[in-house]
Amino acid sequence: MKTLFQYNWIVREQWYQWCEETTPEELQRVRVGGVGGILHTLFHIVDVEWSWIRVLQDKPDFQEDFENYNTLEKVRNLDKEFKQDVEPFVNSWNAEMETRPLDIPRLDGTVEILAWGEVMRHVIAHEIHHVGQLSVWSREVGKPPVSANLIRKGLIQPNETQLQD
Amino acid sequence: MKTLFQYNWIVREQWYQWCEETTPEELQRVRVGGVGGILHTLFHIVDVEWSWIRVLQDKPDFQEDFENYNTLEKVRNLDKEFKQDVEPFVNSWNAEMETRPLDIPRLDGTVEILAWGEVMRHVIAHEIHHVGQLSVWSREVGKPPVSANLIRKGLIQPNETQLQD
Repeated sequence: MKTLFQYNWIVREQWYQWCEETTPEELQRVRVGGVGGILHTLFHIVDVEWSWIRVLQDKPDFQEDFENYNTLEKVRNLDKEFKQDVEPFVNSWNAEMETRPLDIPRLDGTVEILAWGEVMRHVIAHEIHHVGQLSVWSREVGKPPVSANLIRKGLIQPNETQLQD
Repeated sequence: MKTLFQYNWIVREQWYQWCEETTPEELQRVRVGGVGGILHTLFHIVDVEWSWIRVLQDKPDFQEDFENYNTLEKVRNLDKEFKQDVEPFVNSWNAEMETRPLDIPRLDGTVEILAWGEVMRHVIAHEIHHVGQLSVWSREVGKPPVSANLIRKGLIQPNETQLQD
């Protein structure tokens, strides 16, 4: 679990760096697909990650619009602020939390029940999916995208005393 | 680990169904970003998943070109064939395999060492990333993309006897 969050955070930081070398016009341009723009996507990723973790913690959700966070600096600052909640939660993850139930009330009065482990993987997949969209748009801008490779980031240390199968 | 592979397989099947409702011309059209097309992306996902798992098993890799698999039926058949190797391997995954070393010889004679757990997560992220690209192209085609939601696919059963934190 932690590995994939760490992967997302590394890639996200690299996209912020990619954005530094791109004009605000390109970052804010409305595009086809996803939430419709590069910076808007990064805002959406940060928002959704934090919001789900707030829901798991039974704390109030984030309800602001992109319009108030439409610069790279504002998104990065929001990310930094939210990371203070998100990172300790991810680091505290353990096997018992995988099947813990999350009740989500439906409008009709019934309750949907999700497993915490589903929610966490949903957050992981959500970011990777949206970053895939960024990679198409980066080509439209005429720039190579950030690498999506998970290997070669030093995320898991191989145990060289183990036998290869 | 298994949950995210299962997620990818469900979403991939839904993209095949999406492809059934799309013309071969759109599926084969060369597009900006990624490997450059919808069907080519699905082929690439199937190829990369199987190839890495073959590498972990120290078995020969897949070396064929998309040109020989450029119809939906051919990609689905290839996927079905490869799944016979991939699925049992994923289902046999255990914690001890996470840090098992994979030696990759470099051209200069040195050896790169990856952890098996990194490789498996690389495969997972690889597919989700490329599916994000499909979602942009589906809008170009004028069709809604397959949902990327991981929740609501019944992948983890919540334990309703557990307390919510």
